[in-house]
Amino acid sequence: MKRSFIREILESITPNTISFAGGLPDESLFPSQDLRRSADRILNDPSTIQYSTSSGIPALRQQIADYYSQQGFETHADNILITSGSQQALDLLSRHYREQSITIESPSYLGAMGIFSINHLQTDAITLADNGIMIDPFFKSLQRTRLAYLIPDYQNPTGQTYSLEKRKTIASNLKQHDAILIEDAPYSDLYFDERQPPISTMVPDRSYHLGSFSKTLAPALRIGWIRASEELLHPLILYKEAMDLHTNSLTQYILHDYLHNQNQYTHHLERLRKHYAKKMKLFSEVLQTYLPTFLFEEPNGGMFIYGKLPGIDTTQLLQKTAARGVVFVPGNEFYQGGEGLNEIRFNFTHPSIDSMEKGIKTVAECL
Amino acid sequence: MKRSFIREILESITPNTISFAGGLPDESLFPSQDLRRSADRILNDPSTIQYSTSSGIPALRQQIADYYSQQGFETHADNILITSGSQQALDLLSRHYREQSITIESPSYLGAMGIFSINHLQTDAITLADNGIMIDPFFKSLQRTRLAYLIPDYQNPTGQTYSLEKRKTIASNLKQHDAILIEDAPYSDLYFDERQPPISTMVPDRSYHLGSFSKTLAPALRIGWIRASEELLHPLILYKEAMDLHTNSLTQYILHDYLHNQNQYTHHLERLRKHYAKKMKLFSEVLQTYLPTFLFEEPNGGMFIYGKLPGIDTTQLLQKTAARGVVFVPGNEFYQGGEGLNEIRFNFTHPSIDSMEKGIKTVAECL
Repeated sequence: MKRSFIREILESITPNTISFAGGLPDESLFPSQDLRRSADRILNDPSTIQYSTSSGIPALRQQIADYYSQQGFETHADNILITSGSQQALDLLSRHYREQSITIESPSYLGAMGIFSINHLQTDAITLADNGIMIDPFFKSLQRTRLAYLIPDYQNPTGQTYSLEKRKTIASNLKQHDAILIEDAPYSDLYFDERQPPISTMVPDRSYHLGSFSKTLAPALRIGWIRASEELLHPLILYKEAMDLHTNSLTQYILHDYLHNQNQYTHHLERLRKHYAKKMKLFSEVLQTYLPTFLFEEPNGGMFIYGKLPGIDTTQLLQKTAARGVVFVPGNEFYQGGEGLNEIRFNFTHPSIDSMEKGIKTVAECL
Repeated sequence: MKRSFIREILESITPNTISFAGGLPDESLFPSQDLRRSADRILNDPSTIQYSTSSGIPALRQQIADYYSQQGFETHADNILITSGSQQALDLLSRHYREQSITIESPSYLGAMGIFSINHLQTDAITLADNGIMIDPFFKSLQRTRLAYLIPDYQNPTGQTYSLEKRKTIASNLKQHDAILIEDAPYSDLYFDERQPPISTMVPDRSYHLGSFSKTLAPALRIGWIRASEELLHPLILYKEAMDLHTNSLTQYILHDYLHNQNQYTHHLERLRKHYAKKMKLFSEVLQTYLPTFLFEEPNGGMFIYGKLPGIDTTQLLQKTAARGVVFVPGNEFYQGGEGLNEIRFNFTHPSIDSMEKGIKTVAECL
């Protein structure tokens, strides 16, 4: 098994590295003091640190279900399975569908491709166009695989968002082929203006919708979830309990306490969106100023700006910039067939505004 | 896949149930206020809730390594991999040894048998005698499997402890057959008088020693670890990062802060041992008084009293007692070949002292 590139980068980062690599949120926006007050309340009750149930604490599952229902996607607590981050949700699902074929986007999320490979799923990678996966090849692939993994909102790595029309077409394809969708949505709450409905709302009984608090609150809480019909969820609960009994319930209770004050979370999300939209704009300006040969479109949300440096091998470029303390992820990493050699994914949420200009100037100097 | 019996029981328990079933610690002994102070300090620094490294935060790994070294088992931070509880350690290991054969104890830990089955390990179950696994059949089995899973301290379910002599014989068998040991040790710090050295100390390069804070501090923290040579540990780290990126680092930092005050943890463990030894004695007296046909030996540590009710089908007995609000685990659950029909595992750490007498009287009335 190959060590994941992202992990190696993350582990080699020093406090002096300027990193555009990992999908790290901006620490300065973590609601640490609010979480601290929640932890303080929660730890007054020792029952919050006793063994708990495998599917997650009922109160948090209810809050997540309510969050869906409020957005018009009717959901009950029994439709929610709490996982140790979205990554574990992908492990659970790929164990369940072990050795089966699955249609994925090309390029796609590294962590998904890694766990699919460990669980011996056969991936069929279909090119992403400007507003989502290319429909004709997707349609053909789905006929065969009857299982798809998509990231329709501010896709990782490309930052792309699927158009409403494409979502509808995909939903109708899924029904037509009696196929199942794994809709990964860790960035969906990080929209800059408007947002599209999840594809899962159009196929509620044939989809797993994966959410996470890692990007919106804090990664270290390791709380994600799967929203699905009880029928689809049931076999996953059996894996979950065998894998780690249950997700850390101390942080589940802390989150439940934090979310109980609805305004607190709503205001936090608004602040986050505003701040990230501003950072994206600044980063986009820095790129246009100091790296004008980098071709990209601004994303409508999420954490990444993705683009191309025509004629430049970006893996070789990384070797040069890393030696000067600047890292990013070369596009090639996100493909399975050797494509993306000239492409780069830049994360704009984590680097400080000061380091953006300095880092991109260094990249330009290494060209 | 069969739903685990233990989980079903745990999930059906109401506040009024008297449960001798799960391996739950006594909530009244959780150091909640100390953990609360640690959480309060930790959450002042937002970097504690950012993404972290897959093998665990270095400072906590160093503390665990030091804890081994202080007991004469020389260990470095690089020999420690933090997992989301011991259960995840078993998942990691059984993924790594997927589809291989493994020698286990009969009876053995339900959660281990469950995850071994999911990962298609072929288990060869060898009878436990009074002071550990039966050597001749173990020896023969190991020739074939070259991999063993043992719980030498206050075994689950039997409460047995391996003698020093047996530990030495097993270590020499392991070397002779070039075999690997998975030594599960969640109860090892819960000794009532003296304790034996881990078998792993005698075969440090061919063993995984699994530890956990679930039984000694609090289960919901979901912090366990694997101690092994770097060579054995390396492939497991690759699985770990693909499975959930890393274990909840907020609770890792809380634990690190808590353990930093060494006296605090030492005193907590002493208090825990004293309290559990007392509870075991009381429970033993209750059993002798109200259920005199139950044959058992008192354990030297851990959380369980295991024994036999000759002529009684304990699964049928459970159905009667559960209807009257009292539960335990029938021995049969811990075997793979239908044995243990007259056996019972009673947990003595979680039930209140008042409920012990009431619960065992009910069991006796249902005979």
